[in-house]
Amino acid sequence: MTKTPAGTKHRIVIDWGTTNFRAYLIDNKGVTVDEVEAGSGIQHLSEGEYEPELLRLVGKWLKEHGALKIYALGMITSRNGWVEVPYVACPASLKDLSKGTIRKILSDGSEIIFLPGITNTGSFPYPDVMRGEETQIIGQVIQMKPDDESTIVLPGTHSKWAKVENGTIVQFQTFVTGELFALLTTHSFIAKVAKPSTQINVDAFELGARTATANKPQSNALPTLLFSARTGMLANQLSPADLQDYLSGALIGHEFQMALASGWVQPGGQVTILGNDGLNDRYARVAKLIGLKIAEMADDTALAGATAIAQELETLDQVA
Amino acid sequence: MTKTPAGTKHRIVIDWGTTNFRAYLIDNKGVTVDEVEAGSGIQHLSEGEYEPELLRLVGKWLKEHGALKIYALGMITSRNGWVEVPYVACPASLKDLSKGTIRKILSDGSEIIFLPGITNTGSFPYPDVMRGEETQIIGQVIQMKPDDESTIVLPGTHSKWAKVENGTIVQFQTFVTGELFALLTTHSFIAKVAKPSTQINVDAFELGARTATANKPQSNALPTLLFSARTGMLANQLSPADLQDYLSGALIGHEFQMALASGWVQPGGQVTILGNDGLNDRYARVAKLIGLKIAEMADDTALAGATAIAQELETLDQVA
Repeated sequence: MTKTPAGTKHRIVIDWGTTNFRAYLIDNKGVTVDEVEAGSGIQHLSEGEYEPELLRLVGKWLKEHGALKIYALGMITSRNGWVEVPYVACPASLKDLSKGTIRKILSDGSEIIFLPGITNTGSFPYPDVMRGEETQIIGQVIQMKPDDESTIVLPGTHSKWAKVENGTIVQFQTFVTGELFALLTTHSFIAKVAKPSTQINVDAFELGARTATANKPQSNALPTLLFSARTGMLANQLSPADLQDYLSGALIGHEFQMALASGWVQPGGQVTILGNDGLNDRYARVAKLIGLKIAEMADDTALAGATAIAQELETLDQVA
Repeated sequence: MTKTPAGTKHRIVIDWGTTNFRAYLIDNKGVTVDEVEAGSGIQHLSEGEYEPELLRLVGKWLKEHGALKIYALGMITSRNGWVEVPYVACPASLKDLSKGTIRKILSDGSEIIFLPGITNTGSFPYPDVMRGEETQIIGQVIQMKPDDESTIVLPGTHSKWAKVENGTIVQFQTFVTGELFALLTTHSFIAKVAKPSTQINVDAFELGARTATANKPQSNALPTLLFSARTGMLANQLSPADLQDYLSGALIGHEFQMALASGWVQPGGQVTILGNDGLNDRYARVAKLIGLKIAEMADDTALAGATAIAQELETLDQVA
């Protein structure tokens, strides 16, 4: 665990997304001593409502400890959030992210520091973006040796593949895999037939992943690969209980197949999977299936990343 | 227009799909003399309800002309329809389709002939299928010279690419392009921002198509290509009024890109686009954009196909 320099006060880290709000009170030894979770995602709030809602949710901590530094990450720093923090361009290091923050003093005297997202300006056709995931990556990077080179995968609604070199996020790519899965299993021809699965059907999942990674024209074309959920039913090779996990395997397998085609990892190479939405186990299964090594699998590194940025900023403040 | 042999009676062709019912009364000269359309798609009906509903909808024709031959195509012949007609395997000719029909005598003495769908057993990972589109293709094929070789594209919810040689459907591939468009513009992150477009925004559409056919790893990976609708907004390169047509161009462009990768058409080659859902103009735009020739564009060939199958069967009946 990263340590807060002796003598500094408690700090608060908030992860404020589209649908949820999470806050962590971290003591002067770097230990999380309290947490708050609420459904006050930014989609439910308008301008002028953010500060009162924040002070309401973490008010007890501020009453107990006085004004604190509050580090905010997630969609709260987007165009649709409280304060839009411009993206920091890749290659982006811990220091670059720290310098890209925007600060604001709240009515109680607390200082809120909004963390930036990052952008990959080399992407086609438009610069790719992430906002929140970069803090998770930084949380992983600070645990790596300075010269470690690594491909990091963050599963999710909009999953990310990122390349890290010398402690710096060099470039990355977004795949809307999780959103496609949700759309297809909720609203499509697959949804009409699929029996919801409560626990993973490993055989069906791996069948989907193997199909997607077979490197045939019909599996590389996602709009054809998806139709195999129907043709597999008609051929009596898939049952309604298989469909959801077959589709999950096919979509995640397709993501790996396209990541290989994009050069994010070489055949036989290794990936680091950072946990998100409980999907890291599924991503690890596909990685193993196609012969990739898994360097690390970490559950939650966002807090470690935010803490590292906090320490960097507090060090800079002391120097200034 | 194909002609009914002299002396034969009127016939009825019905196109009975998941959501709609359409019937055509065709006179002994092959001319459509009356039509009926209704919302009685098979999704609204159960076993035992098909015959009464059919007799109700075309009853006035049977009263006027007596018992007739009724040729039925569409999802009515599927596992979820009235009578499941097994798929005929590719390569499939007019004669093969005729032999694959299933007949049934109705309570008024009319004979209903259910047309089969076709299956491409060489597809990966499962045999691909179509049910209804093959009748459209046959309607096109009978207008071609016997030795014409052609790639036929049928745009739609689940669009099809088919190869025709010597009057035979040799093989085909399904892309669920239209369904993905509907899902993304109704329920996804794109739906939240997009301003519905009433008429085609050609610039946005062609921008999407050009992006998808640029043959870059990021455009060939559909889950990344789709995210460009968001990054284009963030980069101020796309407006809410552009999003729907940008996405339409991107998805149809991706379908062409993957069809090229699958060998359905060679660069600089030609395609025949059969009309469906008003999409043939969009498909033709993409074909032209990437340098393909368009051999023909026909609006509705299903009736011609059904009539050809009817004539083939009636000739066989006379011979027998």
